[in-house]
Amino acid sequence: MTPERVESTMRTIHNAITTHLTILDGHPPLEDEWDYESGEGGGISRIWEESSLIERGGVNFSAIHGEALPEAAATQFSIDPDTPFFATGVSLVVHPWNPHVPTIHMNVRYFQAGHRWWFGGGIDLTPYYPVFSEVVAFHRQLKALCESVNADYDTYKRHCDDYFHIRHRGERRGVGGIFFDHLQHDAEAHHALVERLGMSFGALYRPFVEEHRHDPETDDERAFQLYRRGRYVEFNLVYDRGTKFGLQSQGRIESILMSMPATACWRYDWAPDPGTPEDLVQSFYLQPQDWLKVKKPRRAR
Amino acid sequence: MTPERVESTMRTIHNAITTHLTILDGHPPLEDEWDYESGEGGGISRIWEESSLIERGGVNFSAIHGEALPEAAATQFSIDPDTPFFATGVSLVVHPWNPHVPTIHMNVRYFQAGHRWWFGGGIDLTPYYPVFSEVVAFHRQLKALCESVNADYDTYKRHCDDYFHIRHRGERRGVGGIFFDHLQHDAEAHHALVERLGMSFGALYRPFVEEHRHDPETDDERAFQLYRRGRYVEFNLVYDRGTKFGLQSQGRIESILMSMPATACWRYDWAPDPGTPEDLVQSFYLQPQDWLKVKKPRRAR
Repeated sequence: MTPERVESTMRTIHNAITTHLTILDGHPPLEDEWDYESGEGGGISRIWEESSLIERGGVNFSAIHGEALPEAAATQFSIDPDTPFFATGVSLVVHPWNPHVPTIHMNVRYFQAGHRWWFGGGIDLTPYYPVFSEVVAFHRQLKALCESVNADYDTYKRHCDDYFHIRHRGERRGVGGIFFDHLQHDAEAHHALVERLGMSFGALYRPFVEEHRHDPETDDERAFQLYRRGRYVEFNLVYDRGTKFGLQSQGRIESILMSMPATACWRYDWAPDPGTPEDLVQSFYLQPQDWLKVKKPRRAR
Repeated sequence: MTPERVESTMRTIHNAITTHLTILDGHPPLEDEWDYESGEGGGISRIWEESSLIERGGVNFSAIHGEALPEAAATQFSIDPDTPFFATGVSLVVHPWNPHVPTIHMNVRYFQAGHRWWFGGGIDLTPYYPVFSEVVAFHRQLKALCESVNADYDTYKRHCDDYFHIRHRGERRGVGGIFFDHLQHDAEAHHALVERLGMSFGALYRPFVEEHRHDPETDDERAFQLYRRGRYVEFNLVYDRGTKFGLQSQGRIESILMSMPATACWRYDWAPDPGTPEDLVQSFYLQPQDWLKVKKPRRAR
């Protein structure tokens, strides 16, 4: 796999997602190009803020070449710090205004240093007012996507549950999806997975937007959404490896923290009343489930 | 120094601060008592939320005895994990509604394991619309406080600037204060410092409240306050040792995250217009200053 080919795939994914989100939102993004100051290359951040569909969100592309691996990365990957490296990827987070439209996150990435290289990525969904059949359909699509490129949905689904774990809360960040990292076995196959995932974003997210973007919302629903966004912040700042690595390596801070919601709230020791939709989110949807087998809870929509 | 004596001092500080905040706010706090499940003792959290002065804040007391030091602490302090330990302290964070009243944080703590013990603590101020003379007066009071117990203001002031550093932003969290840790040289003297600091909270914070609690506020000022609160969240979740230790050691999560504001906001790549009060905050007040010598900037209030 040449760096040029992966970078070209990433650019294609970045542009395809930009088109999807522009159509869904109805407005083009704000675009910022930036240079990687410690080496060659750079990135393009595309942001929607206070837009029609999107309260805050965006999709970033980057492709950087460096003469020497940053210390933190070298230690983490057990690679000599003097090794030149190449890293490219696309990441997106979308926080829509309407509490009935889920937040979504997707990331695909490729890393190369010396003779080592690997692919990684994933997609995961964070609904505030989930509809059971839609969550199942999302996972069903992911299973089909994995099977179409001979990737193992069950493993990647489990990795996703393991990764997006807010340990201090005993909750997952959302209803999961797939997550994979350090794929270094078959470059063509991994490239195909990453490409398929990236190019499927529109098909995976559009149904949620089209179904719910005009749902009426109450003040309480908005409050619950902002409360759950506090958990999103907690996960990203405390646990997310990409965020932590970006902060430690003095990356472009506004691109790294594009994942933050516009607004997040905290309430002391708050818990939803038993039997409410909000209670079902925290007691059922935010616990790992085998979505392709689990029975719809009686109270679920 | 006996554990009983330090615990008694901490309880006295906790109650004195509760009284101060109750008078300032005009309402008593919500109180939660909790037990330390992995050993003996526990704590008392006192919280104000959506109250008169305080949007969200509180003051926590804890005193816990354990049979064996948690793994993380043992590693951090190079102490045998099987050592029984005792830890007690008071911590407070107050986020007032009015953007003209600063957020304040204070913490005093004592730790003992085997033959080792130490005191730590500090206070720091996070104004949104600082008044120069008030920031100077705050530091002048802290210097006098330190001198009254033979503590070194200059060193602790510098430690505070070093500690409350949001490295990925190149900013401090606020205008500093004092910070000290691992004081293990003279128990009586360190106890006196901690006691004096704890009992001085009212005198240190009251002036800001009385002067500004009824200041008129604009929507833009409120927006800037919520934006800066995003930075408070970033510091606490990414850097604060107490928060990280609490999350890792599965402490009482709502007491640990009592430091979170009710609401925090993020805006992509936002910067205040040059020459505005908000610009002066970020370019002058959030950089370390020798407050007892620095000249008032021309644009400062």
